[in-house]
Amino acid sequence: MTIAGYRYHDDTLPEAAITLEELELMKEATLLGDGDIAALRRSAPILEPQIDEILDVWYGFVGSKPFLVAHFSDAKTGAPIPEYMDRVRARFGHWIRDTAAAEYDEAWLRWQLEIGRRHHRVGKNKTDHVESTALIPLRYLPLLAQPIVDTLRPFLEADGDDRDAVDAMQNAWRKAVLLQATLWSHPYVKEGDY
Amino acid sequence: MTIAGYRYHDDTLPEAAITLEELELMKEATLLGDGDIAALRRSAPILEPQIDEILDVWYGFVGSKPFLVAHFSDAKTGAPIPEYMDRVRARFGHWIRDTAAAEYDEAWLRWQLEIGRRHHRVGKNKTDHVESTALIPLRYLPLLAQPIVDTLRPFLEADGDDRDAVDAMQNAWRKAVLLQATLWSHPYVKEGDY
Repeated sequence: MTIAGYRYHDDTLPEAAITLEELELMKEATLLGDGDIAALRRSAPILEPQIDEILDVWYGFVGSKPFLVAHFSDAKTGAPIPEYMDRVRARFGHWIRDTAAAEYDEAWLRWQLEIGRRHHRVGKNKTDHVESTALIPLRYLPLLAQPIVDTLRPFLEADGDDRDAVDAMQNAWRKAVLLQATLWSHPYVKEGDY
Repeated sequence: MTIAGYRYHDDTLPEAAITLEELELMKEATLLGDGDIAALRRSAPILEPQIDEILDVWYGFVGSKPFLVAHFSDAKTGAPIPEYMDRVRARFGHWIRDTAAAEYDEAWLRWQLEIGRRHHRVGKNKTDHVESTALIPLRYLPLLAQPIVDTLRPFLEADGDDRDAVDAMQNAWRKAVLLQATLWSHPYVKEGDY
């Protein structure tokens, strides 16, 4: 199945603005190590059959907050744009898979920076040809890591793993999402300050 | 005891660049609610007698990472500046108390934005009259929330609370630190993009 606008592993994406060495330091700063990568990968088959339900929860959260749903809405009328939400949802579903796969290589880094541009005014709306808000304000990128990872808990528990194992998977997700939200912030930051 | 450069509740600080209404939306986005405020305040008397040990752990972490300790070091020689580290440490100790007090009012908001300026090139080094790096790169603000809150775990357990109660305190700390790191990011972000 082709997902519109999904470009992980697309060699025509711009070069990453940071190096793999810098990415390693970012992982180190947030304590994301090999144990977390293993825990993320353990979560993959647990989450796979639940992706639609997870998206329902996340969309339910965003849909319940007018200040968030605005960014999926028409800038003029304020009405949510269903096609926009659907297209983002398809990519978001694949994002769950990609986050659990935890391949922190050059292709992944380029794709994260592209996702960042799509949150920022340099790229928002373009992929989906909509006229929504100019950008998702920077403040919501790190903050939304919390509801994403909090609400993942019951889905991580679905295979009956014990509490320690679920904690390990959830904590690995926390680090992975925080790392990504930080990468997505790149286009918002003043030259030289990132 | 006077802590050099500590200015929470100082009316001469610049006005906050965001409103209390915006702060409420940020709390909502990161699911920081009344239960978390109660959990933060429950942690206060548990952490109070352990503040020095907590700072030892955090300074140990930073000290073990050359790319982090650089920001406490002389920009020319690269040598750590002990007086700078000591002055920041005294404020960091009080920051633990202030985070656990969880008073999200105007004075708190102004102080958070001042802390942000002191991480950014507009304010770094000035309070302590040092010549260290020009700024702490934006990327490390959200990322360092993770080791701060991870390493807090054994200290939150010190009073023998059960696992659910410790989880609640730790999760509240997670939200509180993420909220603050996000506020501290303000001076780094391009006009209109925060």
